[in-house]
Amino acid sequence: MLPGKKIATLISVNTAFMLAVVKLIGGVLTGSVSVLASAVDSILDIGSSTVNYFAIKQSEQPPDNDHRYGHAKFESLASLIQAGVITLSGLYILYEAYARFESGKAVKSIEGGIWVMLFSLAVTFFLVIFLRKVAKKENSSILKTESLHYEIDLLTGGGVLAGLVLVKVTGINAIDPFISVLIALKTVYSALVLGKEVSEDLVDKALDEDDLKKIHGVLNQYNCVIVGWHKLRTRKAGTEKFADLHVQVNRHLTIEDAHTIADMIEKDIAETLGGADVQIHIEPCEGECAHKACTLCDTEIRNEINRLKSK
Amino acid sequence: MLPGKKIATLISVNTAFMLAVVKLIGGVLTGSVSVLASAVDSILDIGSSTVNYFAIKQSEQPPDNDHRYGHAKFESLASLIQAGVITLSGLYILYEAYARFESGKAVKSIEGGIWVMLFSLAVTFFLVIFLRKVAKKENSSILKTESLHYEIDLLTGGGVLAGLVLVKVTGINAIDPFISVLIALKTVYSALVLGKEVSEDLVDKALDEDDLKKIHGVLNQYNCVIVGWHKLRTRKAGTEKFADLHVQVNRHLTIEDAHTIADMIEKDIAETLGGADVQIHIEPCEGECAHKACTLCDTEIRNEINRLKSK
Repeated sequence: MLPGKKIATLISVNTAFMLAVVKLIGGVLTGSVSVLASAVDSILDIGSSTVNYFAIKQSEQPPDNDHRYGHAKFESLASLIQAGVITLSGLYILYEAYARFESGKAVKSIEGGIWVMLFSLAVTFFLVIFLRKVAKKENSSILKTESLHYEIDLLTGGGVLAGLVLVKVTGINAIDPFISVLIALKTVYSALVLGKEVSEDLVDKALDEDDLKKIHGVLNQYNCVIVGWHKLRTRKAGTEKFADLHVQVNRHLTIEDAHTIADMIEKDIAETLGGADVQIHIEPCEGECAHKACTLCDTEIRNEINRLKSK
Repeated sequence: MLPGKKIATLISVNTAFMLAVVKLIGGVLTGSVSVLASAVDSILDIGSSTVNYFAIKQSEQPPDNDHRYGHAKFESLASLIQAGVITLSGLYILYEAYARFESGKAVKSIEGGIWVMLFSLAVTFFLVIFLRKVAKKENSSILKTESLHYEIDLLTGGGVLAGLVLVKVTGINAIDPFISVLIALKTVYSALVLGKEVSEDLVDKALDEDDLKKIHGVLNQYNCVIVGWHKLRTRKAGTEKFADLHVQVNRHLTIEDAHTIADMIEKDIAETLGGADVQIHIEPCEGECAHKACTLCDTEIRNEINRLKSK
């Protein structure tokens, strides 16, 4: 029996914790900077898997009095802080590598380092297999990202291993800090990409072109019952999408019919975006608007509404 | 002639920059940790005054395609990052003070430190006077905070000066790092308070009780033309307030009358909050609602609307 999404991320957190401890001890005992850098990477994995755990937990939480738009942005905020910490850790690895180049100290026990990395690679390999299975079963995008994240760790871990083997074969100690520099740069880069992404959420960036086109598409379908629309605003919080807009209808409509149209559009936009919070402000057309919707009589509009409903 | 708000903050930035340079050089030359700590404080002042400059500039910028809800959250995001940097600087001062306690090194030139601090206090004093005047003329809350910020700097600067004088009189060198610890704690505390405040903006925390009561008050005034309201949601971005809610009206009303009511409520809420972005979704009451608004005939409702309008 495969466990659920939340349990899967908890298993990730515990695996990352175990690997971090093994690599930290291994890195200090063997004196290998690249193993130490890999330990820092695992510490960050604890962080990111924890964020994913809470993201999954939060997404199940309803809005409360203090947060009427839900809690999804807590995830973005946590990710931003995490990105800051990851950046600092990357800079710390660079500093350590620099100190090693300067001092020219050798790795104390290459064999020890190799064993630590072999163990870590094996554990990560089984974690990836496990995460992929749960992600497939639950069709969860967060778990797919999580699994991808650990696949990349397999690559960097393989790099560290290859570096240590090369040091053993060639006797060139500088290979060890050099590999740690590569890991540091990759770490800082990932952190900055993550930081930029969640920042866009936090400053209420509009949805991307694809989503906007989908919204326009839905609105076009309602051409025959609405006069026009404007002031479309969109933003998102984690996986939650928000949209609000003004829709103009024939000014002789009753509020009941106008509201039916608004609710149908809201539902359609939400569906086409794969779930969204849509808020429509209904307005009457001004003066003698020549648009089709305004020349239809009430019965015709009701027929149109029924036709759209039955689609 | 007093300059405008933007120019005033630019003058703050330049003053803080000049003080930071003088104190940094002074701190290194005299070997006083508390003067160095004060220099770090000035570097943070450059940051916070810069944020204020952009806050004033941004608040004048309209929403664009990518950011339909405006740009106010860029300010919050910048402040959050600033709070992170300030916290790190505070921790750095603590580390420096610890190293000084450990090494027991003496201040090299107490007189030098005293002169640096006297100069800095004088400059800050004139900056405070200047900021207060502009803040009063422009009635700007940001500038009032800015002026208060530098008044607190006068106090901590006075503390550093008093510490140096005490070192000179008593010969106890530990007074210098002790004062720097106090400044560090105050710095970290301010950073955390600032961080918490802007984080609430970033996760879309609801408006405070006062504002919510004002909104309820406005809605109560419309008791006679609306059947009810629900789903009130509020949030803010910097000084910009957002609200959306559903309002139920008599289902026989035309969209034209319903919209007039909605627009009036939106305008009233915005006014009572001192400016806000309000979005109302109008709904018909369900079934035979017994509420007063539903027993009024169209003419009576229109009279009510006219009565409210003329208020």
